[in-house]
Amino acid sequence: MTRNPQLTAEGELKHLLTIEGLPCEMILRILDTAAPFASVAEREVKKVPLLRGKSVFNLFFENSTRTRTTFEIAAKRLSADVINLNINTSSANKGERLLDTVDNLAAMQADMFVIRHASSGAPHLIAQHLAATGCDHIHVVNAGDGRHAHPTQGLLDMYTIRHYKRDFSQLTVAIVGDVLHSRVARSQIHALTTLGVPEVRVIAPKTLLPSGIERLGVRVFHAIDDGLRGVDVVMTLRLQNERMQGALLPSTEEYFKAYGLTQERLALAKPDAIVMHPGPMNRGVEIDSAVADGRQAVILPQVTFGIAVRMAVMAMLGGT
Amino acid sequence: MTRNPQLTAEGELKHLLTIEGLPCEMILRILDTAAPFASVAEREVKKVPLLRGKSVFNLFFENSTRTRTTFEIAAKRLSADVINLNINTSSANKGERLLDTVDNLAAMQADMFVIRHASSGAPHLIAQHLAATGCDHIHVVNAGDGRHAHPTQGLLDMYTIRHYKRDFSQLTVAIVGDVLHSRVARSQIHALTTLGVPEVRVIAPKTLLPSGIERLGVRVFHAIDDGLRGVDVVMTLRLQNERMQGALLPSTEEYFKAYGLTQERLALAKPDAIVMHPGPMNRGVEIDSAVADGRQAVILPQVTFGIAVRMAVMAMLGGT
Amino acid sequence: MTRNPQLTAEGELKHLLTIEGLPCEMILRILDTAAPFASVAEREVKKVPLLRGKSVFNLFFENSTRTRTTFEIAAKRLSADVINLNINTSSANKGERLLDTVDNLAAMQADMFVIRHASSGAPHLIAQHLAATGCDHIHVVNAGDGRHAHPTQGLLDMYTIRHYKRDFSQLTVAIVGDVLHSRVARSQIHALTTLGVPEVRVIAPKTLLPSGIERLGVRVFHAIDDGLRGVDVVMTLRLQNERMQGALLPSTEEYFKAYGLTQERLALAKPDAIVMHPGPMNRGVEIDSAVADGRQAVILPQVTFGIAVRMAVMAMLGGT
Repeated sequence: MTRNPQLTAEGELKHLLTIEGLPCEMILRILDTAAPFASVAEREVKKVPLLRGKSVFNLFFENSTRTRTTFEIAAKRLSADVINLNINTSSANKGERLLDTVDNLAAMQADMFVIRHASSGAPHLIAQHLAATGCDHIHVVNAGDGRHAHPTQGLLDMYTIRHYKRDFSQLTVAIVGDVLHSRVARSQIHALTTLGVPEVRVIAPKTLLPSGIERLGVRVFHAIDDGLRGVDVVMTLRLQNERMQGALLPSTEEYFKAYGLTQERLALAKPDAIVMHPGPMNRGVEIDSAVADGRQAVILPQVTFGIAVRMAVMAMLGGT
Repeated sequence: MTRNPQLTAEGELKHLLTIEGLPCEMILRILDTAAPFASVAEREVKKVPLLRGKSVFNLFFENSTRTRTTFEIAAKRLSADVINLNINTSSANKGERLLDTVDNLAAMQADMFVIRHASSGAPHLIAQHLAATGCDHIHVVNAGDGRHAHPTQGLLDMYTIRHYKRDFSQLTVAIVGDVLHSRVARSQIHALTTLGVPEVRVIAPKTLLPSGIERLGVRVFHAIDDGLRGVDVVMTLRLQNERMQGALLPSTEEYFKAYGLTQERLALAKPDAIVMHPGPMNRGVEIDSAVADGRQAVILPQVTFGIAVRMAVMAMLGGT
Repeated sequence: MTRNPQLTAEGELKHLLTIEGLPCEMILRILDTAAPFASVAEREVKKVPLLRGKSVFNLFFENSTRTRTTFEIAAKRLSADVINLNINTSSANKGERLLDTVDNLAAMQADMFVIRHASSGAPHLIAQHLAATGCDHIHVVNAGDGRHAHPTQGLLDMYTIRHYKRDFSQLTVAIVGDVLHSRVARSQIHALTTLGVPEVRVIAPKTLLPSGIERLGVRVFHAIDDGLRGVDVVMTLRLQNERMQGALLPSTEEYFKAYGLTQERLALAKPDAIVMHPGPMNRGVEIDSAVADGRQAVILPQVTFGIAVRMAVMAMLGGT
């Protein structure tokens, strides 16, 4: 039996690579740990000394100012030293192997790597390599890898749902949009099913759904009106602009007509349904501005909770 | 009556958007607050804990390493956590709206935004938006917007003049160069007239002066020799290289011949006149090296005072 | 007699510009100072307050994420405020002179400049300029200048050799590769000869050796098998990819066949010989993966010791 590489033998969090396979209790523990950090942000001095003297490396092999910023703030509020590395512009150009870069940073006595990479599985590979080279005191946090996973996004989404809905066990949740290319959707589906949400729906055209998606425990809808009916939570996905240029989609206008979240469509959901989006939004593509700025949107609270959840994950890792 | 958006109902500094409309007492208060920070820099440990635990975001929509650096140092010497964001290279590419970016950073519990933007009025717009969205606990500092304003530059210039001349009420000050495109010149003019400088001159060819500039309370000179005669302070402006390619100017050589500040020309000013420049200098274009490095130049003290003035502004904002 | 510009009149370290001319006792003092910092990194909290409140500027006129990162970590572990500046993307574009940039940063009350520059001698020039302008309280650390010197690399290499071999006085050391273009090789040769290593060899084709290299006190070998025989330490050099495109080298395959360090070749050295590389490695060009990952390689310990050596240099400079 292979142990979950994210957990120690004692079941403590060692890395955060994916939500898939993470026990329900661990997800809930992360959400519980995040709660006081949400209030840290409201204190006069937002810093706590939990990671003082620790070196956190933001290793971004793919550019993302927004995600990097959330991790940078979270680490600084924990009093860590933060080093930002945009790897594409440096060693990668000089032809150094990914794992040589990792070895070097490990030799600089890193305590944590926050990794964003265009290739699915890169953070796993790095975590395995650290174990194989005797550096498994270094913790890895996946900040998004290819189409695979974006676990802190999934966790902050769960924090948000719990904040507004309290209980997962009675919910119907719809995920709308480009599920095929979305690491966010995968992390959300694993989190929702693990937490016992009885009905998770995905709403997308066939061309934007991976084959066999039903095996993840979701119900597939191709017509958005059918899919939104009676849901408690609508999770919209960002449409990657680059998909527009391929054959997958006719145009953003067509997409909005068929799948954009408008006030009219949202009216099909429960009256107290909340609307989420991982950002950055394409207004008028996957979501109408009236919805994005409307009373049901919880898109900005997601961002706030995201800092707290990242602080929780880093604090839990830093303490093991 | 509309209140000055930079001040609270109690008249405290809330944002620093422009010097226009800032009361004389407030300008003097900023200069007074800056004085001890100038000496902080000479202490063994240059840090003070006034902004400890606060999150300052440097939002640079236009690249400026030098200005960003001065704000970064000022904030770090106040013990703030500083996050640098070059927005042009990230979300802006992904098509996110400016105000969505602002909303997101506000949701990350920012305490202060230092904003540089190519569009005049962007910091005002952001400050208004923060007020409209209930985020007006976040302070905005304009670090240069389009041709509009660069208030911390104007303030550090006033600090410098006061340092060398003590009293504003007897001075003749000349601003030389490309006033038309210069946010620095606008901020200087508003500061000088507010502080009661009896004669503020602008010296430039007609093509580099905005129409109606006299309404700001300045005297216009087209011939540099006339304009420099008897002045106490010469404030040179940077000539934007990109103006050279348009029809506005024949060549940098021609410009230097007509408006470059040389030792000969400087001799027309008072013997103890000081020479200022906001940097970076184009030696041999708007200023001769002999003047830039001469005994009357106070260009480097301007930089030193600039850190102190930015610390003062940030400390005053952070305390409200 | 001109005094060594790196030392004060009392013989204390004032700048670190090059290893050439640095007294043996000073090199040993730096290595001794580094030793406790190597253990700082293993403590729970890796920070020491030696540079608290000091402003360290990383001035990189040439891009090098790896070297910049090592200095950034070292400075942060000493509790300094660190400002990173990639100068090529900013003022340099606006046409500002190098020394005007330096003057400005000095006026911001910098305490230390860590300088990387493509031109040999740039850090010397800057140190001289600081002295001439009354700013010689600011310390300069050369982080690599053109083909001239990379003194912290040379020092960390000496730390590594001493760690594994204890005594310099009985060693035979071979430096293999592109000596002609390598600032690393120059710093290594000066350090080794100053520390009394009796035999320093360089192994390279004639086209990759500077003329008159023997005058530095080294023995030249063109055949790698001859040069490696009986050595205690093999220092491989990185082959600059850009050299490949010129006429200097036929191809990377040819180079590897003639000069690549393989297990077979390494077997000619002493059985306990260590293998070093400054990184980033070109596997299969100057070094075979079996050697790079083999039991004799000390390439990652070099990185770890590099942080300690940089902390030592910065702490010694910050204390004078």
